[in-house]
Amino acid sequence: MIISIIGIGLIGGSMALDLSSQINVTVYGVDTNPDHCNDAIKLGLVKEMISLSKALAISDVILVSIPVSSLEQILPAILDQIKEHTVVIDLGSTKERICNAVSTHYNRGRFVAAHPLAGTEFSGPSAAIESLFRGKKNIICNQEQTDEDALSTAMAIFKSVGLSSQFMKAAEHDKHMAYVSHLSHVTSFTLGLTVLDIEKDEKQIFNLASTGFASTVRLAKSNPQTWSSIFDKNSPHLLQALDSYIKQLSLFRSAIATHNIEEMESLMTKANEIKRILQN
Amino acid sequence: MIISIIGIGLIGGSMALDLSSQINVTVYGVDTNPDHCNDAIKLGLVKEMISLSKALAISDVILVSIPVSSLEQILPAILDQIKEHTVVIDLGSTKERICNAVSTHYNRGRFVAAHPLAGTEFSGPSAAIESLFRGKKNIICNQEQTDEDALSTAMAIFKSVGLSSQFMKAAEHDKHMAYVSHLSHVTSFTLGLTVLDIEKDEKQIFNLASTGFASTVRLAKSNPQTWSSIFDKNSPHLLQALDSYIKQLSLFRSAIATHNIEEMESLMTKANEIKRILQN
Repeated sequence: MIISIIGIGLIGGSMALDLSSQINVTVYGVDTNPDHCNDAIKLGLVKEMISLSKALAISDVILVSIPVSSLEQILPAILDQIKEHTVVIDLGSTKERICNAVSTHYNRGRFVAAHPLAGTEFSGPSAAIESLFRGKKNIICNQEQTDEDALSTAMAIFKSVGLSSQFMKAAEHDKHMAYVSHLSHVTSFTLGLTVLDIEKDEKQIFNLASTGFASTVRLAKSNPQTWSSIFDKNSPHLLQALDSYIKQLSLFRSAIATHNIEEMESLMTKANEIKRILQN
Repeated sequence: MIISIIGIGLIGGSMALDLSSQINVTVYGVDTNPDHCNDAIKLGLVKEMISLSKALAISDVILVSIPVSSLEQILPAILDQIKEHTVVIDLGSTKERICNAVSTHYNRGRFVAAHPLAGTEFSGPSAAIESLFRGKKNIICNQEQTDEDALSTAMAIFKSVGLSSQFMKAAEHDKHMAYVSHLSHVTSFTLGLTVLDIEKDEKQIFNLASTGFASTVRLAKSNPQTWSSIFDKNSPHLLQALDSYIKQLSLFRSAIATHNIEEMESLMTKANEIKRILQN
């Protein structure tokens, strides 16, 4: 099986690593960034970096792992040019707009809209790691629009890297992601900004940073281009999540400002219920 | 040396564990919660649970590790009753109001205002762990008001459990803590509240929670009583930090709402500078 991966960053590169090691699989890379191309070869992520047109001509499967802002433009063009049996899988973090962009395409059946729930706060080919996906979940959206054989091929690929797949409507996926992923990125970036801002006057402040702070602010190290694109493409759901967050934050602020201990404890006791979800 | 620890929770209990194991040290516990007393004995944290009055009568050192809301009342009463050479050390997370509460006490010289920067999101005697303090920082505030011998004793105790101490004005400590500890607890609790709230309608939401979310929301598991007390006693600095956070959050929200990619990326690039501080 010939698999071409478009976009050799953290996700595409990690896919490349895990797929390359399998028998009867040859992995090619496509990337518009010359540094990424050099790094991908040096790091041995792919057999060769090739052009998009060559990838379209020779591949059985095309994995698209590029910022979601570019996906809407590129995906229809890819579906225009694929061979009859090629499967095209996108791995973007938002799904609704991408699914809409190709919903009436004559090759829609060859397309699988997926989102492996895996990643780190690092980016680029050098961030690619083996087994990134092992034991993680993968969401496949609007699968009823995908041809049965294309879906089977995609499921086999995901399974081979350790992902367990589940199905979901694209709109539902995007709403859930706004709450459990995109919102926590915004709050982490904001925490980083706030503390860096006060540091201008208080040089010593980071001497005191504890592991609790480090854990809460970790996502503020994430890649700005990746996330501006995700925030923008999921802005309706994200704004809803943000407004709900801001409302809760106002309740908290007001309890602190009025020395309302009872209200503070009531809010925190409710928040403690998160223990039910997080096992450690 | 006889050391009594008032309040055998996460911090007091962990201190008890590390001090009990040292030669020539006997550790007694004092706690108003009968369950904590039973647990402390069962877990072998202390030699014996005793009354406060007995502790005041027999101890060379008294470590006070109770919610900061109770400290302001209890600390002056303790200083009223200690023997001539007893050293009283508090381990609370806020320092300014506590230092003010005893600043003119005739026994102020016997008091050491400290804050070991260590902890987990768990609480109570069963949360006590060995070596919690090893390699961590400890802040001692307004040390110029402490007698030299009392300061030396406290420094030796902190060193023996692996803490490295530094000095700071109480007001400065509280301001810094508002930014690098208390604020991240508020944002974590708020994130937990927001996601639990949407979960009422979207049962499946936590299936999708990733490690990034888990890391950002971890502090929402913290003890409500401990933190209401800290937030309240440090409310002037915390409100300042919160308002600065809310301002940054509004900038972020507005960039998302207006599809201003450039502004989003500029904010995130600034926030990325946090990498300078966090090594991993």
